[in-house]
Amino acid sequence: MKSVDINVVTKEDEIKKQMLEFLEGNSFIQHLGIEMLEMSVDGAYAKMPYREEVLNPYKSVHGGVLYSFADIVAGTTAAMEGKLATTVNGSMDFLEPAWQTEYVYCKASKVRSGKQLSVFNVEIRDDDGKLLEQGSFTFFKTSMSVMR
Amino acid sequence: MKSVDINVVTKEDEIKKQMLEFLEGNSFIQHLGIEMLEMSVDGAYAKMPYREEVLNPYKSVHGGVLYSFADIVAGTTAAMEGKLATTVNGSMDFLEPAWQTEYVYCKASKVRSGKQLSVFNVEIRDDDGKLLEQGSFTFFKTSMSVMR
Amino acid sequence: MKSVDINVVTKEDEIKKQMLEFLEGNSFIQHLGIEMLEMSVDGAYAKMPYREEVLNPYKSVHGGVLYSFADIVAGTTAAMEGKLATTVNGSMDFLEPAWQTEYVYCKASKVRSGKQLSVFNVEIRDDDGKLLEQGSFTFFKTSMSVMR
Amino acid sequence: MKSVDINVVTKEDEIKKQMLEFLEGNSFIQHLGIEMLEMSVDGAYAKMPYREEVLNPYKSVHGGVLYSFADIVAGTTAAMEGKLATTVNGSMDFLEPAWQTEYVYCKASKVRSGKQLSVFNVEIRDDDGKLLEQGSFTFFKTSMSVMR
Repeated sequence: MKSVDINVVTKEDEIKKQMLEFLEGNSFIQHLGIEMLEMSVDGAYAKMPYREEVLNPYKSVHGGVLYSFADIVAGTTAAMEGKLATTVNGSMDFLEPAWQTEYVYCKASKVRSGKQLSVFNVEIRDDDGKLLEQGSFTFFKTSMSVMR
Repeated sequence: MKSVDINVVTKEDEIKKQMLEFLEGNSFIQHLGIEMLEMSVDGAYAKMPYREEVLNPYKSVHGGVLYSFADIVAGTTAAMEGKLATTVNGSMDFLEPAWQTEYVYCKASKVRSGKQLSVFNVEIRDDDGKLLEQGSFTFFKTSMSVMR
Repeated sequence: MKSVDINVVTKEDEIKKQMLEFLEGNSFIQHLGIEMLEMSVDGAYAKMPYREEVLNPYKSVHGGVLYSFADIVAGTTAAMEGKLATTVNGSMDFLEPAWQTEYVYCKASKVRSGKQLSVFNVEIRDDDGKLLEQGSFTFFKTSMSVMR
Repeated sequence: MKSVDINVVTKEDEIKKQMLEFLEGNSFIQHLGIEMLEMSVDGAYAKMPYREEVLNPYKSVHGGVLYSFADIVAGTTAAMEGKLATTVNGSMDFLEPAWQTEYVYCKASKVRSGKQLSVFNVEIRDDDGKLLEQGSFTFFKTSMSVMR
């Protein structure tokens, strides 16, 4: 008779749970209304609502809000390896105004993960899948574990 | 006996007044607590308080908040010529965490203002004048007047 | 019985021919050994040999040479619409050293082409298809025709 | 009677001598005609002649050549601490065409030097001191000594 563990919790699941707690406990991320849809070591996907609170005077989403969205989604992916990561630099191209959409969606994709540095690309799209912004972020891997 | 106009209002004063109205009427800028201290066509200077609402889980100011701060201050300068300006791209180096300070200060300086494009450098410093972030933003000059 | 013109020369063909003349007549591009393999308004593809003349003291291809390669390939694509384009800014991530390869290959892809500005992404890979560098370039469309 | 050491050679002098040997022995740097004028751990200053070999089809210096110039001058500064440094990323704003000048001059200034990463700003000017390009480069400090 075999004993079967039906509740396998992988390390990735634990890190994910911890990261979600960080995100949910963070006042600024909650103010932006960011909701993580997918998270792995290779990438992440999230959405953020178009709301009065994040608009610029032209009624499109603030460039800084979109950059924040991208940095948060990419940084979450960077931390999925288990160590907290800090942004070294990040650059963003603003291609189209983010308006006439219910949500904006950010996809972060791992480009490289080295010993100390990792690089992620981000794309922000609207409800119709139109590309609004693209960017690239470099992170430094700290020695601090994500797990408390 | 001479008549002296003691209420000369320059075009720059009017643009400045209009820009301040935009900033004060904007929910996101108010949420960040940004306060403009100086504004001209050559540059701008502003401060933003270190507050729980803008911190990341490490208790330093969110990179995206600092980028927003920089984009707003540089964009305000870009618009001081009288036409609204939209961000084409912006890149930021994150040098030191923004903490143990009451405010962070952003200085935006005009590098070039051409027919259609303008470039501004930004520096963010803490209470002690330590450089925390630097960046460069490119703006496209729209044909929309700042004045309504 | 219909007469069929078997020698249709499109405008794109003419621009391509003119651009190739520019490239072949340019001393720096020839020094780097850049060879265009594909060119269209949507992207371009080129190769450059690994040669002593372009190496840094570590025996990998100079970062500046790779940036030049990317700027030239992206700029060629930007001009395929018929107007010369000048680089506004360009950013590059250096992921892996470019060595132990016979050639490096650059692919430039159009991200956006607006009225005045265009944005292109570039990827540089080695013989094995490994990603070595990535970058993003913004161009300003001049009013000067590519055709003399 | 005092003993006086009249041949004090500092470590910085030795590193400088070694770096100059690297630069003089490098085919690409020699092709560009780069000449170092000042070198220290805080910055460097160099000049490069306007010559047919480095021009684009518009008769101004290739953007990639200017980027190479900047990367080489900043990278030389980054290595003045004694360890070879590799470029992580570099971004450049092209403000004015580099022409009608005998030389272009590049000044690299240290912004930050941490345990593993360093950041340098660069400015490229013409004979009249006009700013033509500006950029920012991030380097990773390797464990390889500059000294053989």
